[in-house]
Amino acid sequence: ANQKDFISFAGGLPDEELFPKKELKQIFETYSENLPSDLLQYSTTMGLPKLIDLIKKQFKFKEQLLISNGSQQALDLICSVFLNPKDKILVEEPSYLGAIGLFKSYAAKCHTVKLEKDGLDLKDLEKKLKKNTYKFLYVIPNFQNPSSISYSNQKRKKLSVLAIKYNLIIIEDDPYGFLDFKGKQYKKIFDYAPKNTIYLGSFSKILVPSLRLGYIMADEEIMTKINIAKQYKDLHTNLFSQYILYEYLKRFDIFEHIKMLKINYEKKGNLFYKTLKTELGSYFEVEKPKGGMFLWVKLKDNSNSEELLKRAVKKKVLFVPGSVFLQDKTKQSYIRFNFTNSSKKDIKKGILRLKSLFPKT
Amino acid sequence: ANQKDFISFAGGLPDEELFPKKELKQIFETYSENLPSDLLQYSTTMGLPKLIDLIKKQFKFKEQLLISNGSQQALDLICSVFLNPKDKILVEEPSYLGAIGLFKSYAAKCHTVKLEKDGLDLKDLEKKLKKNTYKFLYVIPNFQNPSSISYSNQKRKKLSVLAIKYNLIIIEDDPYGFLDFKGKQYKKIFDYAPKNTIYLGSFSKILVPSLRLGYIMADEEIMTKINIAKQYKDLHTNLFSQYILYEYLKRFDIFEHIKMLKINYEKKGNLFYKTLKTELGSYFEVEKPKGGMFLWVKLKDNSNSEELLKRAVKKKVLFVPGSVFLQDKTKQSYIRFNFTNSSKKDIKKGILRLKSLFPKT
Repeated sequence: ANQKDFISFAGGLPDEELFPKKELKQIFETYSENLPSDLLQYSTTMGLPKLIDLIKKQFKFKEQLLISNGSQQALDLICSVFLNPKDKILVEEPSYLGAIGLFKSYAAKCHTVKLEKDGLDLKDLEKKLKKNTYKFLYVIPNFQNPSSISYSNQKRKKLSVLAIKYNLIIIEDDPYGFLDFKGKQYKKIFDYAPKNTIYLGSFSKILVPSLRLGYIMADEEIMTKINIAKQYKDLHTNLFSQYILYEYLKRFDIFEHIKMLKINYEKKGNLFYKTLKTELGSYFEVEKPKGGMFLWVKLKDNSNSEELLKRAVKKKVLFVPGSVFLQDKTKQSYIRFNFTNSSKKDIKKGILRLKSLFPKT
Repeated sequence: ANQKDFISFAGGLPDEELFPKKELKQIFETYSENLPSDLLQYSTTMGLPKLIDLIKKQFKFKEQLLISNGSQQALDLICSVFLNPKDKILVEEPSYLGAIGLFKSYAAKCHTVKLEKDGLDLKDLEKKLKKNTYKFLYVIPNFQNPSSISYSNQKRKKLSVLAIKYNLIIIEDDPYGFLDFKGKQYKKIFDYAPKNTIYLGSFSKILVPSLRLGYIMADEEIMTKINIAKQYKDLHTNLFSQYILYEYLKRFDIFEHIKMLKINYEKKGNLFYKTLKTELGSYFEVEKPKGGMFLWVKLKDNSNSEELLKRAVKKKVLFVPGSVFLQDKTKQSYIRFNFTNSSKKDIKKGILRLKSLFPKT
């Protein structure tokens, strides 16, 4: 009961009000009448073949896919194929905590490249590539977690040129690419440099996270290794999720569903931005979100957001202090807000609770 | 169409005719009417709390459990927590291919301890433990894959005493423990040495493999590390599988289901044994199966079973040559037969195909 009073802008959770419950119930009904004969037996490591075919067709992929337990497992498979202890890798600064933590659990050395407003600082990247060899570069080019930055097409292209020149593998993690509020679709780095890029897609943010379904697209040689790793790690992804997704894609229009998501997320994102600007504009540096699920905010007075969080907890409002996403621990004044998982009412209420922590202006 | 003519005794597959289809359809029907509110959102890394509680209650476990994507993922989680490249570990000789392959993918050095008819050769084990430190010992004490051996209670007890004495971690992998044809239930090594043992259970062989659901039981300190590894590796096991298993356990009697499985598997196992004995008794050393899913057979003339397989493929009958389960590659004359996945008709037909490869006696 106590926990219910909390308003959390912390987790990277989608809006559960927008889950396709009616459609999933219909799918359960279909399987209650007719259970596919191969749904219960052991299956293939790559994934349910007809699901793979359908994803390729609907998302217009030409390459082979492997179905993973969400993008998170995809990252683990890649790590197990590429990483040895003390290997150097490159990550964006800031970057996704779950990836950095995973890389470090493989005892990899994470070197950072700064993010600019339109993507990676490529001069800094090339300087590093000239000096050292890195096992891979991990990027989230669309509505990056936590910074919400999207790479310009020019930077994607230049980055792929550098990757080819320096024989660099890029992991292109793309859970938010379909969540551009204006419906803009950037080009994939994978399309510019298919031999150098491992592309990760996910249904967690555009459909249902608990399905734990993502996919990997990669060059054949890399894919063969990933497939062997997957076989050793869990034989194959569970078929219940795969069949439910297959049936969903076959019977419903996922792109219509995504449109609906974007309309709702844009409204919430704008409300969060406007309320923050109105109520705390003199304390927070904040930009209007163009897509994704996060606002990346800076405290104007450079104060410590971890300290702010401690005080916020007492007011029952939560966020993630930016320091957890940053390797440079001197940058203490960033905050990541999630705007998709709270109701409009709670967005306003939570921001007012935060406001009460600051002196009146 | 061609592949259909093959009779395979190779895979470790359960009998798909015995899957609880009717019961699963009923569960799908329930969810088609009423979808649990938390079924679609991200969930906890340990697993669905009410599923964990129900498993603990029904299987009489007192310790905390973590739900994994089958036992195979449980093994991977343990490897990621314990293993560094070149670490020494101990495995039974012979042992499960999927485990050995996984351990080697972590660059572990697999040292073997011979299996006797009632379990590990404990003298050999203690000699090794005196000389070296091993990260863990991996055992399958019930109807071992591939040897079909079960440890005596005495050996379990003595093994646990050694584990405590030498500070050895035992991984007790137990997918077949419920499949004793006479309903015998051996004691768990875990119960003798709970601080030293990590117990792995699975629903793949007693219910449905495609759910990809297993569980880990371990000492709190070890479990904390496994939980962190699981979080980095795939956040959590998919909830669709977990909810379906929860509903199954709540509404149906899994122990009645297992009884039915055992009656059917005993019939098939006996048929396989008798037919092999009658038709190929002069060529094969074979023992009547007491449970599990496999027959472990030796060619009396010590000929090479890989060579036999090459000839068997031409007759469209498949098995696994024992060499893949053995580190000692001079042992070439073993064969693993699966007796659960073929129909009775195919068991007879397949053995007759094999017989045609041998000179008439």
